[in-house]
Amino acid sequence: MRSPLPDYLSEVLQACSDEDGGELAAYIPELADADPDRLALALSTPSGTRYAVGDADVRFTIQSISKPFAYALALVDHGLDAVLERVGVEPSGDAFNEISLDPATGRPLNPMINAGAITVHSMLDADRVQAGFAAFAGRDLEVDEEVHASELESADRNHAIAYMLRNHGIIEAKPTEVVDGYTRQCSLLVDVGDLAVMAATLANAGVHPETGERVVPRWVARQVLSVMTTCGMYDAAGDWFTLVGIPAKSGVSGGVIGALPGKGGFAAFSPRLDEHGNSTRGVRIFERLSRDMGMHLMEVPPAARPLTHGHAAEDGDGDGDLDSTYELQGAVDFVGMERLLVELEREEEGAREIVLDLTRVHEVRDVGRRMLLEAARRLALDGHGVTFVDPEDMLEVGDAGSIDVGDGPAATVVRER
Amino acid sequence: MRSPLPDYLSEVLQACSDEDGGELAAYIPELADADPDRLALALSTPSGTRYAVGDADVRFTIQSISKPFAYALALVDHGLDAVLERVGVEPSGDAFNEISLDPATGRPLNPMINAGAITVHSMLDADRVQAGFAAFAGRDLEVDEEVHASELESADRNHAIAYMLRNHGIIEAKPTEVVDGYTRQCSLLVDVGDLAVMAATLANAGVHPETGERVVPRWVARQVLSVMTTCGMYDAAGDWFTLVGIPAKSGVSGGVIGALPGKGGFAAFSPRLDEHGNSTRGVRIFERLSRDMGMHLMEVPPAARPLTHGHAAEDGDGDGDLDSTYELQGAVDFVGMERLLVELEREEEGAREIVLDLTRVHEVRDVGRRMLLEAARRLALDGHGVTFVDPEDMLEVGDAGSIDVGDGPAATVVRER
Amino acid sequence: MRSPLPDYLSEVLQACSDEDGGELAAYIPELADADPDRLALALSTPSGTRYAVGDADVRFTIQSISKPFAYALALVDHGLDAVLERVGVEPSGDAFNEISLDPATGRPLNPMINAGAITVHSMLDADRVQAGFAAFAGRDLEVDEEVHASELESADRNHAIAYMLRNHGIIEAKPTEVVDGYTRQCSLLVDVGDLAVMAATLANAGVHPETGERVVPRWVARQVLSVMTTCGMYDAAGDWFTLVGIPAKSGVSGGVIGALPGKGGFAAFSPRLDEHGNSTRGVRIFERLSRDMGMHLMEVPPAARPLTHGHAAEDGDGDGDLDSTYELQGAVDFVGMERLLVELEREEEGAREIVLDLTRVHEVRDVGRRMLLEAARRLALDGHGVTFVDPEDMLEVGDAGSIDVGDGPAATVVRER
Amino acid sequence: MRSPLPDYLSEVLQACSDEDGGELAAYIPELADADPDRLALALSTPSGTRYAVGDADVRFTIQSISKPFAYALALVDHGLDAVLERVGVEPSGDAFNEISLDPATGRPLNPMINAGAITVHSMLDADRVQAGFAAFAGRDLEVDEEVHASELESADRNHAIAYMLRNHGIIEAKPTEVVDGYTRQCSLLVDVGDLAVMAATLANAGVHPETGERVVPRWVARQVLSVMTTCGMYDAAGDWFTLVGIPAKSGVSGGVIGALPGKGGFAAFSPRLDEHGNSTRGVRIFERLSRDMGMHLMEVPPAARPLTHGHAAEDGDGDGDLDSTYELQGAVDFVGMERLLVELEREEEGAREIVLDLTRVHEVRDVGRRMLLEAARRLALDGHGVTFVDPEDMLEVGDAGSIDVGDGPAATVVRER
Repeated sequence: MRSPLPDYLSEVLQACSDEDGGELAAYIPELADADPDRLALALSTPSGTRYAVGDADVRFTIQSISKPFAYALALVDHGLDAVLERVGVEPSGDAFNEISLDPATGRPLNPMINAGAITVHSMLDADRVQAGFAAFAGRDLEVDEEVHASELESADRNHAIAYMLRNHGIIEAKPTEVVDGYTRQCSLLVDVGDLAVMAATLANAGVHPETGERVVPRWVARQVLSVMTTCGMYDAAGDWFTLVGIPAKSGVSGGVIGALPGKGGFAAFSPRLDEHGNSTRGVRIFERLSRDMGMHLMEVPPAARPLTHGHAAEDGDGDGDLDSTYELQGAVDFVGMERLLVELEREEEGAREIVLDLTRVHEVRDVGRRMLLEAARRLALDGHGVTFVDPEDMLEVGDAGSIDVGDGPAATVVRER
Repeated sequence: MRSPLPDYLSEVLQACSDEDGGELAAYIPELADADPDRLALALSTPSGTRYAVGDADVRFTIQSISKPFAYALALVDHGLDAVLERVGVEPSGDAFNEISLDPATGRPLNPMINAGAITVHSMLDADRVQAGFAAFAGRDLEVDEEVHASELESADRNHAIAYMLRNHGIIEAKPTEVVDGYTRQCSLLVDVGDLAVMAATLANAGVHPETGERVVPRWVARQVLSVMTTCGMYDAAGDWFTLVGIPAKSGVSGGVIGALPGKGGFAAFSPRLDEHGNSTRGVRIFERLSRDMGMHLMEVPPAARPLTHGHAAEDGDGDGDLDSTYELQGAVDFVGMERLLVELEREEEGAREIVLDLTRVHEVRDVGRRMLLEAARRLALDGHGVTFVDPEDMLEVGDAGSIDVGDGPAATVVRER
Repeated sequence: MRSPLPDYLSEVLQACSDEDGGELAAYIPELADADPDRLALALSTPSGTRYAVGDADVRFTIQSISKPFAYALALVDHGLDAVLERVGVEPSGDAFNEISLDPATGRPLNPMINAGAITVHSMLDADRVQAGFAAFAGRDLEVDEEVHASELESADRNHAIAYMLRNHGIIEAKPTEVVDGYTRQCSLLVDVGDLAVMAATLANAGVHPETGERVVPRWVARQVLSVMTTCGMYDAAGDWFTLVGIPAKSGVSGGVIGALPGKGGFAAFSPRLDEHGNSTRGVRIFERLSRDMGMHLMEVPPAARPLTHGHAAEDGDGDGDLDSTYELQGAVDFVGMERLLVELEREEEGAREIVLDLTRVHEVRDVGRRMLLEAARRLALDGHGVTFVDPEDMLEVGDAGSIDVGDGPAATVVRER
Repeated sequence: MRSPLPDYLSEVLQACSDEDGGELAAYIPELADADPDRLALALSTPSGTRYAVGDADVRFTIQSISKPFAYALALVDHGLDAVLERVGVEPSGDAFNEISLDPATGRPLNPMINAGAITVHSMLDADRVQAGFAAFAGRDLEVDEEVHASELESADRNHAIAYMLRNHGIIEAKPTEVVDGYTRQCSLLVDVGDLAVMAATLANAGVHPETGERVVPRWVARQVLSVMTTCGMYDAAGDWFTLVGIPAKSGVSGGVIGALPGKGGFAAFSPRLDEHGNSTRGVRIFERLSRDMGMHLMEVPPAARPLTHGHAAEDGDGDGDLDSTYELQGAVDFVGMERLLVELEREEEGAREIVLDLTRVHEVRDVGRRMLLEAARRLALDGHGVTFVDPEDMLEVGDAGSIDVGDGPAATVVRER
């Protein structure tokens, strides 16, 4: 069978190709001369598959999409506190090239505006940038030297920002060198597939979905995605988040990435930009993807089946007493467990055996496991015998047998009933 | 069994009670004279259960926590476009009482700052506010007339804002009347349980978890939660979202609500405020809740089991041919289906029967269903017979039998195998 | 003889009447419906003569031109410090209707922007405004009740400003009442002759040139003229001062006043306004007046004749010794005296008689008198006899005879030689 | 006789020496290590005398006091319009080191803030700066190379400003070179005497009072003095102008200059600075000078004697008819002439001889001369014979005899009567 996913992605491209609003970035010839009709879309999934359609083999400079990844590297190298000392996490409501420094401290408001990104870059050396971006992309990225040279020539505003940052003691290095390095970072060449897999690495809690390498720790991925949520789309961040609802970042060469925690990374590419500096078709594409796939983070999914698939009072172990058996299904998470606890509250004190059957459970979240074991502890203290039926060791107890659930009697784990 | 949830919530309160930083709001006597040690916490779950601990019976004025709910009502009454014409959705990076109007249009940047909230209020009449808040809370809310009177006396800044709004043509009504009404809205009396259930209504896509009433449409809940994400915590919105990761709103009387899509609503209450105007203990409590329960929206959950629980090639129907049977489990969603599609790509063309067994599936998302049916269509076009085993009608086809999957041969649905 | 001054003023009007740029103020019908071709010019001199040409009998509302006069009244009533506590004297670089409050204190930057003028008005009661403006104009001024009513209806921004001022504790009175009163102040009806004589009162150190009444003390006139210099023409203050060089104030109904210390007050009237809110023809008229009359305050006049008209060594008193006689002319001021002192330095010690002849002197400034007497004191200490010839008692010693010049021998004053 | 002026200046220094508030500039060691008790004062008069007391031989770097002089040079070299295209003349209300660019055009608001001064410097080459400042000072000024080097090291903010200016197209040159040059300009070494004579050159309409050289045209001096009036003292410009009333400029090394049109230039030096960056003692000194000498530009001088010293109807020429003789005195300026015109209006038509005796006149302003001749023309048209008695040719007619006063009969000029 041929997977429908590439066809779907192509259809999305097709549907958005009539959008011809926006203008090419004009401040350097390399961007001004880009083919305005280029259009590409890619998806990288947690399972390590990469889908890419349209002009997927066209490389372009990464530009501001480098910001979240450099931020991630700085967090890894210096820790959260040291980075927060220099760059905040508050949305500025300003355009990307506004200076936007905290009036009291001179600290850039966030790492997604130029001032913050330049500060972040100053915390990394060139080798670290090269190696770090290679780890995110899964391959070495080259610098487009012509773009780098052109950008440097028109980098007056970034130079102004860098000098102002050193004036406030936010960066220590030579401003011209920091801007040079930052401009190199922005001139790394990528295609949509690269960007999708880089976004997917963040969405995958820091683990590269294809190489399996842990590129950044889990907390770093969470921090970066959080900042992308509130600050990723310049002064259209709120508009984007209400409409699309996916943590994202855009760049002046026409790229847009979106990273959905646990679900994968998307990247679109189309060079014409709207008044906020975001790719016009890129925005349309993400609106469509979000709507089609119900991926808006604030979209409440239809309620899942309850955790309790069935409850029976039967003499399961043939000891003449009725056991109380709860057949669980789906995910043992907070929501499911809360509902189960309401049911278990109806269990009066007594010696009745309580059986919790996890055969149909396919996922146990950490909070769900703790709630389940606490329920077992309380049931045991009430006098009940408690048995987990857990054929696939979802509880991760290792060997079946007795399981300590706290200060009362132990529960029992069996592999089958 | 006694549920451990109230005990857990009490423990959280206890753990945060040593936090005694912050100051009472001092601008009116009613707030300045509040008992600074009040502390309460409540949770309202999608299943309709309400947990409340601490000073849960203390009523206080809702203040700015009224903003998202009034915004929701205005969206219902006027539609998204009409509301956006008057109030934006962009974070301002400003404190709550900054005027923060768009310099070009005079439009308030978002509905969570006073200028936006006053504009939103001007789009509602008094009866609508009363009825709408009653629907959210599940009971009629009274106005604290003393607080209302005191607030009005010190409402110079809000009057200034309202006059400036009328100056820009954003509101038409008499500014003094709008401020009077807005102040009444802020003086509605609630307890933490009320707030938790109100938040839960948003988290529950607009349906009150206790009354079952649809208070606002699904899209309105999504819009409100989105704006809470980027703008809910004043000029600490970014800080909050990185640390806590839950859409939220705070008020000057010490309340904080958090709404987790699909998971429920939390509310904390403690009157001492930090420099951003957020309850100091409230912030601590939510940090703890988020960490304990893994509820940070950017926290990637550990990967669930794959959708395919097992795959067997066997002669399931005894016709002498090997069938290809995919035993699915958990949630048929985008992530799971993408992985299944990768497996199905390996199915070469031919007449082999493909069996998709949904017996262990406990949730089918809309996007998953579409992907599953599209796979069936493509398999059928490849020459395969396709059979769904769906004992609980997760596919919602009604009667078992033939199911049309598009332009090719139909698939078959059976209840058991 | 017919004075050429009215003809000159008419010629200026004529020369500027081809300027038809600018737009009528449109925010109230009374201003929007004004005859855009109205044109008038008046001059009031320190000697009490008033010249007025063009539409000199047309009355219009005084609007912002009331600001310096109300400021003067508040200075008189409350003293400099009390007024400075509430309103600064710094140019804002902002348009007239910007709020422009000091971010730290909420104090309006200066009394020529609305926030400052509203604050100033709040320090005066209605009777004081009525009486004070009558004293400046030399007649009672009526309020245009229709304009007052219309202005009030569109006074949202001023209401916003007034509430914000009370919010910062800058004003205490009810904002709506202050705005009502301020709007009445702005609705006083004047003609160009009134305005010229009001300006002349400031230029005349506070004394009304026609009634001879001291309306405000000398220091108040100086303070008001100083603030008009740096803040009088809104965000075109610098442009105006470089081009015209006369302390000035304009109003939205088309009036402009200019006050030249010691030289008189001018007023122009023409309703079309430029983008700064200043009368386009009014600006043209003042540019012409300033150029024609060399009235730019930074225009250095051609050097006057030296104070010493002649110096002779002769035996003036027939005692057989040569006297050293200095025949002075013009103004005994700092510049003149400094030059005389250089000459007197050449007088070696000795008993020679020094005669200082003031017959041709027509003005003795205070600083010049002090310098002259100090010179006499030093000459006397050097052993010289010193005689002033002062037929018209320019030294204001009363009777001729001996005059004490300090710690040494006295000098002699004679009325003729 | 010893001139009292140096003693007076010393007394002013003495009186202000108890002021020990303020702090040394600390951003470079050379300024931070300055002797905080240095105190000097100088005066340069139009007659070319220079007085200097206190630490008058101490040289210090000119710093921001270079700004008005560089502005003057740019005006000379490029003309008013070309300079205005790049730098405005509006006060900013901002501190000296704020960027303060016009938000629409990027144009610095005025040449007295760093952004404006850097722009102005970019319009001059190094030789021009050297030569121009030498002309103003009357001697070559050296650069303090150590200060220059130190300033450059801490010039991050100025670099930021220069890059931002190039970003807006306001300057074209390499920002680092412009800042280097501007810093050299600020590092020129001067003493108070130099500064006083430089200020005096502006006050003297562009002519150096000692060398007699015309350094800049009259209009340039006027423009520079105008901008010093509204923008010279940073964000204390309004405060300074109300208190002191003299066009001025201060610098971070502790210098302050004041230039009084037609009266001379003052300079004070004392390194401790107030919160606006102005020398604390320098401000005190100027307040004292202004008060003592009545030099506040908005201080109205006591009215001078009227232009008409006496009026007689007598048969002056013995022709049997009564002549009408006006004996004039003092300055024939606008104010005096206006009063004379009022008197002349009383002359009825007829053939009576009108004699205007200028014997006691010591100054004829251009506007006064024009008014006098126009009066003569009108009197002649009325039938009068008009005779000027002008022994010292104040009317500048050359030979005595007939003088053409326009379209009517000529008047007569005689040297004596």
